[in-house]
Amino acid sequence: MKFTEYAKTYIPNINNTIGMILDKKLQNINITFLKTYYEEIKTYLLVGGKRIRPLLCIAAYNAFSNERDDKIITPSVGVEFLHNASLVHDDIIDKDNFRRGNPAFHYRFQLYHNNYSLKKMNQSDFGNSIGIIGGDTIFFLGLEPFLFNNFDRNLNLGAIKYYEQAFIDIADGVLIETDMVNRKNLQMKDYIEMISLKTGALLEKSILIGANYANTDDDYYPILSTLGINLGIIFQIIDDILGTFGDEKVTGKPTDGDIREGKRTCLLIEAMNSLDVKKRDQLVNLISNSRITDENVEEVKNLFMEADVINSCKKLATDYYQEVVHALEKLTPVIHDSEKEFFENLLKFVLERKF
Amino acid sequence: MKFTEYAKTYIPNINNTIGMILDKKLQNINITFLKTYYEEIKTYLLVGGKRIRPLLCIAAYNAFSNERDDKIITPSVGVEFLHNASLVHDDIIDKDNFRRGNPAFHYRFQLYHNNYSLKKMNQSDFGNSIGIIGGDTIFFLGLEPFLFNNFDRNLNLGAIKYYEQAFIDIADGVLIETDMVNRKNLQMKDYIEMISLKTGALLEKSILIGANYANTDDDYYPILSTLGINLGIIFQIIDDILGTFGDEKVTGKPTDGDIREGKRTCLLIEAMNSLDVKKRDQLVNLISNSRITDENVEEVKNLFMEADVINSCKKLATDYYQEVVHALEKLTPVIHDSEKEFFENLLKFVLERKF
Repeated sequence: MKFTEYAKTYIPNINNTIGMILDKKLQNINITFLKTYYEEIKTYLLVGGKRIRPLLCIAAYNAFSNERDDKIITPSVGVEFLHNASLVHDDIIDKDNFRRGNPAFHYRFQLYHNNYSLKKMNQSDFGNSIGIIGGDTIFFLGLEPFLFNNFDRNLNLGAIKYYEQAFIDIADGVLIETDMVNRKNLQMKDYIEMISLKTGALLEKSILIGANYANTDDDYYPILSTLGINLGIIFQIIDDILGTFGDEKVTGKPTDGDIREGKRTCLLIEAMNSLDVKKRDQLVNLISNSRITDENVEEVKNLFMEADVINSCKKLATDYYQEVVHALEKLTPVIHDSEKEFFENLLKFVLERKF
Repeated sequence: MKFTEYAKTYIPNINNTIGMILDKKLQNINITFLKTYYEEIKTYLLVGGKRIRPLLCIAAYNAFSNERDDKIITPSVGVEFLHNASLVHDDIIDKDNFRRGNPAFHYRFQLYHNNYSLKKMNQSDFGNSIGIIGGDTIFFLGLEPFLFNNFDRNLNLGAIKYYEQAFIDIADGVLIETDMVNRKNLQMKDYIEMISLKTGALLEKSILIGANYANTDDDYYPILSTLGINLGIIFQIIDDILGTFGDEKVTGKPTDGDIREGKRTCLLIEAMNSLDVKKRDQLVNLISNSRITDENVEEVKNLFMEADVINSCKKLATDYYQEVVHALEKLTPVIHDSEKEFFENLLKFVLERKF
């Protein structure tokens, strides 16, 4: 089954399940502010989002399970809670007031602050405070799908182990990335390690949680890990390319953000490793500058073009794509055809996407 | 066994267990910054802390279990992780740079920021960012004691349910407290509901987790809930009294903090409900003022004295003390004598403490 068909089949049920977890909580609340808080969490979780992680979990379960039942949908939403909780905290850290065209979670509460007459705390601090607690709440609510479902307790405990490991991996990836701005000599292997953790780990764990519930044989786990991690690596490399050389009208994102932030993208690392010493120093000076001008951004882009980074990064993404397609072959004919098609189709989509 | 003896017996093992969870993580790290990060988490968790929550968990287990084994120590530390993770996030929210006389977690990373030469992020934002992720990490690491121990999987899943509920309760309590500054008419029952969640719930869940591992009969859970929640209520009422009328040299805390913050303490609620309209309005004006002077603080204290709030709040704490001592009688002779003594001694200590 194609990725889009899979999405169409399962997304309504995924969204219902997410809504039900919040409704269960909302039922028992009679304090206005708490009601607003959980309503905002519900809205945040239900507006937008491609549900890639629950879909990966469901597909992994269906790939190995002979019972084509819907009971995997409940635990599949746990990883979506984890993903959204991370976004809530990321937006505070990055001071991003908008997400998917809507106000970020903490920003919603900055606006809510206008309702208060007694102002011991300013608007921005109030929004950030509720945002910190909000992210925490979503992390914890994400345990519920593993605690209340129709699977064996043993399988649920296995899933919670992956849930915990997924967060620890993401945090390690984000911390490595934060620290990278301080490092002079960056190799591509450092970048790959960072994005494998930051982006790959949750995709990987989504798949492993699905496989866990299908009682999949241990032998297949390494292949499934490669599937998830490579999907993350390909996604992030293409994201870096589109972040600087994409069509703003299509991606909806400005193409100067990464350069201004001095972000350690694969483009930057490729350029640093292939330019001569003089141009390399020029590049380092440009991106280290805390007051970077529009001309500086153009200069960086020109150095990137000179180093032919788009092609070499696309080549890198294609290598990871081929590795995972090869790995998938090893699962034939163990997994069902429709899920094999889903995984292949999703990988191709992520590699070739323009937005 | 007296509370202090119990503490002396178990604290070394509790600390070892906490240290081992971090050491397990540190073993596999070869990136300098990540090593520093987890070392700082380890230091934060091991410096200070009275370990009340793990001790409650251990005592509840021992109270009902006939096997006096040490295997409860591993899962008992989960609640200590949760407590510390909350403190890390609280200190960011409250902009407190010190905790237990030491730099707060986020503040340690503000200082660490000096190591960076490329400064795309300022010191304060850097500290807060690592602090947000740090609190998250500690919340997740707190799942490990329930995932890797010598108990039945079924019992571990039960413990994780309490772990999740404990955080949701704390968050609800903190949110209710945050919103309280906006409410004009506060009743003591609102205050009690708030502190039952904010302070009582984690003490309660620590006890329930211990009872859960001892396979305690369901009939005893309501009494154990009362034990934990009342302990929290008594603690918080006395904390409010000491926060404004304690001896600074003994408590180590300034006695004007709560008044300056306009915090909804039991003292304030008692005063609001017993003063006449004129004095009540005077009190509201004083605490609503965003630039409160030393004289204003003294005026508030005088109004508190006039309303005789110390005595009425002590009376309130004593009522909750008597209720829980009465509840404990119902557990005699089901629970072991040494643990009954531990609970009674701890309650008395919390009621009579001067610091």
